[in-house]
Amino acid sequence: MSALVLDIGGTKVAAGLVDGDGRLQYETRHPTPHSDDPEQVWATVEQAIDDALAKAGGAVDGVGVSAPGPLRLAAGTTSPVNIPAWRDFPIRDRVVAVVPDVPVRVAGDGLCMALGEHWRGAGQGASFLLGMVVSTGIGGGLVLDGVPYYGRTGNAGHVGHVIVDPDGPRCVCGARGCVEAIASGPHLAAWARTQGWMGADAKELADAAAAGNDIALRAFHRGARAIAAMIASVGAVCDLDLVVVGGGVAQAGPLLFDPLRAELRNYAGLDFVSGLRVVPAALGGEAGLFGAAALLRT
Amino acid sequence: MSALVLDIGGTKVAAGLVDGDGRLQYETRHPTPHSDDPEQVWATVEQAIDDALAKAGGAVDGVGVSAPGPLRLAAGTTSPVNIPAWRDFPIRDRVVAVVPDVPVRVAGDGLCMALGEHWRGAGQGASFLLGMVVSTGIGGGLVLDGVPYYGRTGNAGHVGHVIVDPDGPRCVCGARGCVEAIASGPHLAAWARTQGWMGADAKELADAAAAGNDIALRAFHRGARAIAAMIASVGAVCDLDLVVVGGGVAQAGPLLFDPLRAELRNYAGLDFVSGLRVVPAALGGEAGLFGAAALLRT
Repeated sequence: MSALVLDIGGTKVAAGLVDGDGRLQYETRHPTPHSDDPEQVWATVEQAIDDALAKAGGAVDGVGVSAPGPLRLAAGTTSPVNIPAWRDFPIRDRVVAVVPDVPVRVAGDGLCMALGEHWRGAGQGASFLLGMVVSTGIGGGLVLDGVPYYGRTGNAGHVGHVIVDPDGPRCVCGARGCVEAIASGPHLAAWARTQGWMGADAKELADAAAAGNDIALRAFHRGARAIAAMIASVGAVCDLDLVVVGGGVAQAGPLLFDPLRAELRNYAGLDFVSGLRVVPAALGGEAGLFGAAALLRT
Repeated sequence: MSALVLDIGGTKVAAGLVDGDGRLQYETRHPTPHSDDPEQVWATVEQAIDDALAKAGGAVDGVGVSAPGPLRLAAGTTSPVNIPAWRDFPIRDRVVAVVPDVPVRVAGDGLCMALGEHWRGAGQGASFLLGMVVSTGIGGGLVLDGVPYYGRTGNAGHVGHVIVDPDGPRCVCGARGCVEAIASGPHLAAWARTQGWMGADAKELADAAAAGNDIALRAFHRGARAIAAMIASVGAVCDLDLVVVGGGVAQAGPLLFDPLRAELRNYAGLDFVSGLRVVPAALGGEAGLFGAAALLRT
């Protein structure tokens, strides 16, 4: 099997080839155009497809697409928050048009990250897995009973919009108190600045915390606490065995994971939740490509 | 088909016979003994089984059991919060011993309520359903893609332990800020008393609210807000099409559902969540019996 895989995001479009043993044999990346023209964004995706197809000798066995959401899975369309040019963009039909006569599977980027980690990364062996990313936003996906869980519209696993504080800050989604509005990288940094910290972003905040800066440490603890409450909630509802956390903020390592695990002990009261393990992701930015390939395995 | 069905709870043990068309042909109820002796509680269950078996002429095609949790589904045991005499009680093996040679299926009471409402009640036609009960506790179960979702240990759907306020009150589960610790019947009444209300329980609180008592109305609104935040969170994670709410507190009708729907509009920001419908349960106390029968249909 040779799968052509795409991972489309707000900053980059990646394409690759994954063989039947789950090895990434080729990868190419292009910056996502900042454009109001949906066709200009598509042209970049098509270029990435052409690159990978040429590398494969013109033929592949299927195409897996990790797409930013929200999606309408039944229609095969997406309206990505961070690609404003695409509204109900028919991503599946457009891919089918350039790679005809093979299966084309589309899923949300959160689900693809979870599937990739489940197949080839830190989630191997888990049967009930939440894969999640903490970066400029917070997203995720669920593997339940060993298979991807899509939900009614293909948008299951939007864990960034679990409410962790009913009086909390307004979120981009329109609600308030979403964990994303508290614990995403930009919100961690913004909160630290309200406390007198002078840095620019979550990366600098992690450096400051690593150097012992008190405000930065408290910012990570505050974010970790919100994420822990969310994980306890998802654990109680979905009865999981593992949570895999990736994304830029998770690269802070123990600065995030130590308070996260400590707070999870406070918020996970029920026996079947309190044993829930939380581990760092293993695949980095390539999880989505592996997950897109995994879409073709079920 | 004739299914012998059991609904075991902290206050009553119900048994019944459900035919293949989903009609409840017979029902018997016994109070659950207040006893430290697991065998005394079991004797009441066995009596209920004997009653129903006799009514069925001695033979049934299967047994479905709605059991209070938490469960260990793989082992077929339960350790009900509200039946302290049972700890890791082997409910499935005990039922098999008295009704041998037919399928015996056990599930949590929250899942059975959801399945019952899905098959015969207010959840008919939904494919992604949360069924939940608001009474002395808050519990629930999930029907995902048309089939029961058990989770890793059989305890999925414990929505009462979704954290809706990270600084909230301590919960019986050991965590803090669980929706159950804010919005269950006893907690609604307890909060109202802290505000100067003089009544005894949630039923009196509903009567007071219906008569226009300001504290009682605020108590229902506060509980509804917590439940709305929980529902928005579960909707974002599980991507549902319907929530069915039953239990004693839900019998307050619009006193609960009006503020619940209004607050859900505030907390459900994402498109695929904001359309989520919330409706009252239709089967009352018999949902568990129908759900236990539904366990034998899959």
